[in-house]
Amino acid sequence: MDVLVPFDAREPKTRLEPELDVEERRAFAEAMLADVLAALAETAAAPTVLSTAPVDCGAPVVVDARPLSAAVNARLAEREDDPLAVVMADLALATPGALSSLFDTPGDVVLALGRGGGTNALVVRHPAFRVDYHGASIRDHRRVAAEANVRFAEVDSFRLATDVDDPADLVEVLLHGSGRASEWLREAGYRVITTGGRVRASRE
Amino acid sequence: MDVLVPFDAREPKTRLEPELDVEERRAFAEAMLADVLAALAETAAAPTVLSTAPVDCGAPVVVDARPLSAAVNARLAEREDDPLAVVMADLALATPGALSSLFDTPGDVVLALGRGGGTNALVVRHPAFRVDYHGASIRDHRRVAAEANVRFAEVDSFRLATDVDDPADLVEVLLHGSGRASEWLREAGYRVITTGGRVRASRE
Repeated sequence: MDVLVPFDAREPKTRLEPELDVEERRAFAEAMLADVLAALAETAAAPTVLSTAPVDCGAPVVVDARPLSAAVNARLAEREDDPLAVVMADLALATPGALSSLFDTPGDVVLALGRGGGTNALVVRHPAFRVDYHGASIRDHRRVAAEANVRFAEVDSFRLATDVDDPADLVEVLLHGSGRASEWLREAGYRVITTGGRVRASRE
Repeated sequence: MDVLVPFDAREPKTRLEPELDVEERRAFAEAMLADVLAALAETAAAPTVLSTAPVDCGAPVVVDARPLSAAVNARLAEREDDPLAVVMADLALATPGALSSLFDTPGDVVLALGRGGGTNALVVRHPAFRVDYHGASIRDHRRVAAEANVRFAEVDSFRLATDVDDPADLVEVLLHGSGRASEWLREAGYRVITTGGRVRASRE
């Protein structure tokens, strides 16, 4: 299956700004992208990185500086009945098994549930479906799918539900990641600590 | 399978205090418990609520006022080779399908991945395994399972990973719940709103 991996190469992971400076955010974002591509490489997927600027990542790259939804929808419009998956580049917990479950789930539109109403990964097998990543996108995508009367399915995966946007998300990478992103965090001095019953990543 | 559902009937959901007063927290916690029991009723599970105080919930209740880990371990110690599952009462997104996947996964110890390092649901089929819910419990449970040399498996479910502890979690119930807890939130005036690219539950 063809898989688009949207990546912001210009200002990656701005919400991590309190924790990481601009160079660190870029390095960490590229480590997460590498993890997603490594997981995809163990599936039947053929990935293309859809990047806002050139990036060296070992996979084919298409540069499109438009906002995310417009850039993805341009690719959806180019194809007719071929399926296309979209998997975000910050799914640092993604495994080949979780991704294969998504790709193997039948349906015209298959959405992976995402935290905070996001749609971190989906498969489109219907020519009319378009994405809208603004706001609680999973709700909008459910509604669009219902209105278009397409066969719709949801995939229930914590690994695909967990995108890494905020400082609070870093602990998930330390606890459940096993690739370059978790290695990057450990080398940057991050450890799992518990304070007041809550668990978080803290830098030494 | 026998399933313990730990429930704090004395001071439920104290972290929701900024949002909900004590009576509301109790009512919302009981709505979540009802949703978990309703989901379990559609599986092969035989649930027992393990409560810190008496609670009227339509399922058998065992009262044990000790801290969570001690109360659960007392039940684990009572049995020999019979499997026992432990499913938290605040998994308002749990579905029969997600729970059945957990129960049907083979292994001496089967853990559902939980946000923030928690262990929201597990199955124990090994007589020596004991729980420790303090801190990043999933890491401790992985270590104990490795040291005991038991057959260990993890289940990847967003619905089982999402416990409802903090105000930020309420939006997940509105977006993905379909039972009494989401109904309770709507009747209390909660709606999904988007501000600055983030989605949250806000009270009208």
